Amino acid sequence: MDTARLQQALDTITTRMQASDDWGQVASYIPELARIPPRQFGIAVATAGGEMLTAGAADTPFSAQSVTKVFALAIALGRAGDQLWARVGREPSGSAFNSIVQLEYEQGIPRNPFINAGAIVVTDEILSGRPPKEALAEILGFVRAAAGDDSIYINDKVALSENAHGHRNYALANFLRACGNLRHAPELTLGTYFHQCAIELSARQLARAGRFLIGAPGMPNLVARPRIRRLNALMLTCGHYDGSGEFAFRTGLPAKSGVGGGILAIVPGRASVAVWSPGLNAYGNSKLGTEAMELLARAMDWSVF
Amino acid sequence: MDTARLQQALDTITTRMQASDDWGQVASYIPELARIPPRQFGIAVATAGGEMLTAGAADTPFSAQSVTKVFALAIALGRAGDQLWARVGREPSGSAFNSIVQLEYEQGIPRNPFINAGAIVVTDEILSGRPPKEALAEILGFVRAAAGDDSIYINDKVALSENAHGHRNYALANFLRACGNLRHAPELTLGTYFHQCAIELSARQLARAGRFLIGAPGMPNLVARPRIRRLNALMLTCGHYDGSGEFAFRTGLPAKSGVGGGILAIVPGRASVAVWSPGLNAYGNSKLGTEAMELLARAMDWSVF
Amino acid sequence: MDTARLQQALDTITTRMQASDDWGQVASYIPELARIPPRQFGIAVATAGGEMLTAGAADTPFSAQSVTKVFALAIALGRAGDQLWARVGREPSGSAFNSIVQLEYEQGIPRNPFINAGAIVVTDEILSGRPPKEALAEILGFVRAAAGDDSIYINDKVALSENAHGHRNYALANFLRACGNLRHAPELTLGTYFHQCAIELSARQLARAGRFLIGAPGMPNLVARPRIRRLNALMLTCGHYDGSGEFAFRTGLPAKSGVGGGILAIVPGRASVAVWSPGLNAYGNSKLGTEAMELLARAMDWSVF
Amino acid sequence: MDTARLQQALDTITTRMQASDDWGQVASYIPELARIPPRQFGIAVATAGGEMLTAGAADTPFSAQSVTKVFALAIALGRAGDQLWARVGREPSGSAFNSIVQLEYEQGIPRNPFINAGAIVVTDEILSGRPPKEALAEILGFVRAAAGDDSIYINDKVALSENAHGHRNYALANFLRACGNLRHAPELTLGTYFHQCAIELSARQLARAGRFLIGAPGMPNLVARPRIRRLNALMLTCGHYDGSGEFAFRTGLPAKSGVGGGILAIVPGRASVAVWSPGLNAYGNSKLGTEAMELLARAMDWSVF
Repeated sequence: MDTARLQQALDTITTRMQASDDWGQVASYIPELARIPPRQFGIAVATAGGEMLTAGAADTPFSAQSVTKVFALAIALGRAGDQLWARVGREPSGSAFNSIVQLEYEQGIPRNPFINAGAIVVTDEILSGRPPKEALAEILGFVRAAAGDDSIYINDKVALSENAHGHRNYALANFLRACGNLRHAPELTLGTYFHQCAIELSARQLARAGRFLIGAPGMPNLVARPRIRRLNALMLTCGHYDGSGEFAFRTGLPAKSGVGGGILAIVPGRASVAVWSPGLNAYGNSKLGTEAMELLARAMDWSVF
Repeated sequence: MDTARLQQALDTITTRMQASDDWGQVASYIPELARIPPRQFGIAVATAGGEMLTAGAADTPFSAQSVTKVFALAIALGRAGDQLWARVGREPSGSAFNSIVQLEYEQGIPRNPFINAGAIVVTDEILSGRPPKEALAEILGFVRAAAGDDSIYINDKVALSENAHGHRNYALANFLRACGNLRHAPELTLGTYFHQCAIELSARQLARAGRFLIGAPGMPNLVARPRIRRLNALMLTCGHYDGSGEFAFRTGLPAKSGVGGGILAIVPGRASVAVWSPGLNAYGNSKLGTEAMELLARAMDWSVF
Repeated sequence: MDTARLQQALDTITTRMQASDDWGQVASYIPELARIPPRQFGIAVATAGGEMLTAGAADTPFSAQSVTKVFALAIALGRAGDQLWARVGREPSGSAFNSIVQLEYEQGIPRNPFINAGAIVVTDEILSGRPPKEALAEILGFVRAAAGDDSIYINDKVALSENAHGHRNYALANFLRACGNLRHAPELTLGTYFHQCAIELSARQLARAGRFLIGAPGMPNLVARPRIRRLNALMLTCGHYDGSGEFAFRTGLPAKSGVGGGILAIVPGRASVAVWSPGLNAYGNSKLGTEAMELLARAMDWSVF
Repeated sequence: MDTARLQQALDTITTRMQASDDWGQVASYIPELARIPPRQFGIAVATAGGEMLTAGAADTPFSAQSVTKVFALAIALGRAGDQLWARVGREPSGSAFNSIVQLEYEQGIPRNPFINAGAIVVTDEILSGRPPKEALAEILGFVRAAAGDDSIYINDKVALSENAHGHRNYALANFLRACGNLRHAPELTLGTYFHQCAIELSARQLARAGRFLIGAPGMPNLVARPRIRRLNALMLTCGHYDGSGEFAFRTGLPAKSGVGGGILAIVPGRASVAVWSPGLNAYGNSKLGTEAMELLARAMDWSVF
């Protein structure tokens, strides 16, 4: 990989993003996220060659939120194997991230593991009768191992704030429970889920953590090759909720976004990219993060297609 | 009213019902209701003339459940007046009693006060910042006053059982809360709601309690005449969930059913009828109760049309 | 009936309506209806006692449109009996008059005979393999017989205009056909349907035509008593599409509206009321017609409840 | 590319498929397709290196049906550019290929160009006021040019059969027209659409026709590189209707299926693959074709991820 060209692309994009006059809207549904200053942008790329390139605020920790769904899914598949797919589907939902409509029409089987309902089922699978602390230790341990960085942590305040305002997630979890697709009390699974979402890391750390999805020699070997491909396929088709098709159309890369403004994108065989900017677009994905990812994919001629 | 003819109709219908070979299925979602012996049938009519006629097990108390929604609505309208209609609609929903789909499409405004979501909003309105005990005292007090019978009570075990298994109602309440249409914590409003539903009374007591809806001189004067009409209109269009049109088509009477197997029907100007049989049909309404009500309406030529 | 009081009510209401500063919006989807001057209002009452009282433009013919669905349903039930209910339901739809969503979810069985999809099935049942002319002769003949007035006619220009702009009805008819619930080619059934809707009559004629639904001695005996009740029940629960609950709540009377601005309401045992004003409200029902009906019901203390 | 290994994979897969004891169900909705013998299987690969490898019935012509949607989309984008996206979305629908529900909720804008509603809009865009014959000449010309084979033809009998039984497509087209998203009379656009779908070619011809989507030097240069990527992205996210996520999960390749049993899959930069077997699975995609594609992707280690 031409790292000089890549560094130049990152710098150019970062300069352009920092000059933006529309940074999007910071998530406002919990106070802990609402008070993040919006005008921040950072990007980091971990290459299959083992290099790390960054630009902007690549070392500022942010709330990973739904980006953690990728790691949780990898863990749950490791624990349950293909039996997980009896509890959650693999199709794009065509609906918003927090929609409950599909759940009623399809009797409590979420369409895919990246919408909220599906991610709650995944965390419920990981919980598996253990005290939440143990499940969280496994999740955090996986992310730390992937990043090779034990300083990644869970922000309890964000988790508690989420719990206090997470009525829509409580609606989903209770509905799943009513349909027999939640093994623990909703407050137990959600307590775990909110703490998982409250993992904080920087773009640099996230790019490192994503290396196991590149599928190249020398990368952290946490998941077997066929499963890596499947995780990438799910990220491409379902990683941005009802904006997934649009993101695939524009960037051609598998990726997962979070309401904290982070996006993890994978360039199979080549790189793991993390971008962060806390202001969101209408789909609830990072506004500048999405734009930056599209510019980077174009500049580097990165696309799976 | 020809009370001899009415008594004969009640007796004939009761004999026929007791000979039924299909009593329907007792509600099984909570243990407290699941263990009720199904082969029971009772009916009672309170006439505008002040008479009470009964047949069968008219003095066996049963769980009123959703039949209480009528009384709660009368109370909430008394407290909030037409402002209540900003929080809940007046249209048939075309959906099951516990559906959450409509709630998402219409941003947390339940279609009507008789589906579960709407009834939860109504109870939330009655709660009004008070301790649940006070709200429950008002609700129970209203039913007792309507029936003129202070022995009507709340079965705490049923309420607690409902609370332990009411995940779908928790889903609805949390969704309402997420939409800003629930003023109290979901567990507070639902605690009140489950206790309201756990009111127990006999067919005789229920028929007496329904007299205020007849709209005739000498009946308990709890609600003004125009509101009585409106309550009856809502019962006719929405009282049996997605089986409301069918019930109106067959009996021509405003009525409200409950999952405990009770049905309260009003013959405007003439009578209040309560029927009870715990086995349910596919819509979740009393199987023999529905059939008996249709036979009675035909035998007495009772219909609002 | 106190006809003097009734006449006075009609006059007062008419005066008040004529002073309105918001007449609603005339239906604009076909040119033939769009050019009707909006500021017109007429009302007529045919009493069970055989009297006819009118006020305003009670002799101006207007396009009956969906009001004809009541007459068509009476005819189809006469032909097919209860077998008709295998093709169409009896429940309020909770959806707009021309919605196709419910049809897909319920495999081509329309919720009730008064939404467009259901009315198309009803006309298809009447058509019954005959040339459309014969079916139309039966429909027009029924309305004329009910009104005792052979001058009622079909406006071909309106029918042709409807046919040229009726893509949504063509979508419904083709969908029904695809589901196996339409016996004729869509253009054949719709040709008949559009001509049925294009029947024109005045408020006076419509009030007379509705007398068979009053269910009182001396009224035209076109339909047996139990069926009259059922037709009224359907009008009350489904007669105003997704505004049916609201209309029942406000007036307490079974009624059927049409996009031409007409409403036929029945006061069981007492009267048939027709009101007309071409401007519509948001539900597609006559704005002043709806208001006038509510005022009249209140003034005369008319309500089935 | 190791063509010896590829040929061996094709032969092994074909032998295995031919020994299958479940060939799926041939499409039965039109007589012309229903009478195709089900036990047929053919596969062909056109490599970026210019080679053609086949196995099984690779020279039997079959009805391309929805596979033509890819070519039509390429043409429409060539004509209208990004303005096309004002008429049709780019998101997976989460619904069946012929669903009309989403169309009503989203006011006549189909979710993507590969579900029927979206493909009808695409053909309507190509039609562009011209006689259908001219539009069809352009579509057939494009496919012939892509394949470098002027013997590819349209089967009129299939088109006429489709027209006679295509009520659901007529429902979609009329609904689009009612929403203002169809520029021609439904029968005109659908006449064109049905003829487009009736293009017949063999697996060999289809594999050749798909080469312009490989995006490699020396391939037919019909569409610019960025657009090739976008077409592939849409095929991956939306190419198999509500089975798109599953197909992407299993094979990791962009592909488009047709009800005639054909599938065109692209291995970006490397190959264009066509497989055909007329029996379908529950999603309406070729049963053995889907299985074969998964086996081939695994055998050749082909995946975009």
